[in-house]
Amino acid sequence: MVEQIEIHLPSHKRGFHLITNEIVNRLPKLPQSGILNIFIKHTSAAITINENADSTVRNDFETFFNRLIPDSTSWFNHNSEGNDDMPAHLKSSIIGQSLSIPITNSKLNLGTWQGIYLCEFRNNGGQRRITITILS
Amino acid sequence: MVEQIEIHLPSHKRGFHLITNEIVNRLPKLPQSGILNIFIKHTSAAITINENADSTVRNDFETFFNRLIPDSTSWFNHNSEGNDDMPAHLKSSIIGQSLSIPITNSKLNLGTWQGIYLCEFRNNGGQRRITITILS
Amino acid sequence: MVEQIEIHLPSHKRGFHLITNEIVNRLPKLPQSGILNIFIKHTSAAITINENADSTVRNDFETFFNRLIPDSTSWFNHNSEGNDDMPAHLKSSIIGQSLSIPITNSKLNLGTWQGIYLCEFRNNGGQRRITITILS
Repeated sequence: MVEQIEIHLPSHKRGFHLITNEIVNRLPKLPQSGILNIFIKHTSAAITINENADSTVRNDFETFFNRLIPDSTSWFNHNSEGNDDMPAHLKSSIIGQSLSIPITNSKLNLGTWQGIYLCEFRNNGGQRRITITILS
Repeated sequence: MVEQIEIHLPSHKRGFHLITNEIVNRLPKLPQSGILNIFIKHTSAAITINENADSTVRNDFETFFNRLIPDSTSWFNHNSEGNDDMPAHLKSSIIGQSLSIPITNSKLNLGTWQGIYLCEFRNNGGQRRITITILS
Repeated sequence: MVEQIEIHLPSHKRGFHLITNEIVNRLPKLPQSGILNIFIKHTSAAITINENADSTVRNDFETFFNRLIPDSTSWFNHNSEGNDDMPAHLKSSIIGQSLSIPITNSKLNLGTWQGIYLCEFRNNGGQRRITITILS
């Protein structure tokens, strides 16, 4: 069985954001077991899982990725859309845009410390569209 | 329901290549909704999604990853297969070899700017084998 | 159809470990075709696929990622759990915690040189919990 919903996430500022509840609150009743796939329909944002407790983790993510791929990189050829654009594309493919999470006992089967992150790489990314597919 | 096909991609030169049409043109009629998984059966190539319009994005990807993991890295121990081999393995796991895309209304539900990239990390990677699995 | 099992991997030392057999030996009879998803329920470890023959590849992975994100990074704010903790979180999201592999002819359809890696990023990560979901 397949169930699918589209979610529009409101604009988030550049950075890594814990959105587990934003996702879970919009889900239909989940099947007993299966897979939930989260797919973000953009090339300058990403979806990942990481530590759900201490916000300094998310801040360190932002700092690390800005140092790894600085906005100020001089040799980028793709720079017509702003100096945060090409770094955003690279970060998006490094982290990834598609995430599959097991469903067990009609719940997302995340580990104790796992939360879902929206990774917003643009300074003004605006609203983000996500497709959620539930396979069972 | 599961449908599965094997695709042999012809040899692509080292770099990032937009292959959305190469993939879509070989697909059977897709189900109303579901997930399409693309899996590349190699450890020196990868599959990702990124910007589908401006080829400078793909060129900047190639330059960035070559700077992140230079072929000239002197401390690699695994170098018997050429100096592009160990960088290729690392890039392959950073980008990833398995990609799941939602199917909606019998089409790949990609965002406006999203295209599928073959990431060829070897100088002479040759033909690449891909398994596509459609779940519905 | 969905089948799901939980696996507890014994403690592995920090590094990249080939666990294809550890996984395959615990699987139930696989369906004719489908997808097998491996999900690690932690934020300081990861699952990937890479070269299954030469152990120097795994050693070079460990060295590369330790150079990319050194334990000694001075500017991390999240450091209360040890200096290997924040690097582990970053590596976990760069490599990824969820991996989908095609099943063909009731076997994992891996390429000739592909093996499944457990990426253990903590000095003392202990036992790791994995959820395996089989969709067919």
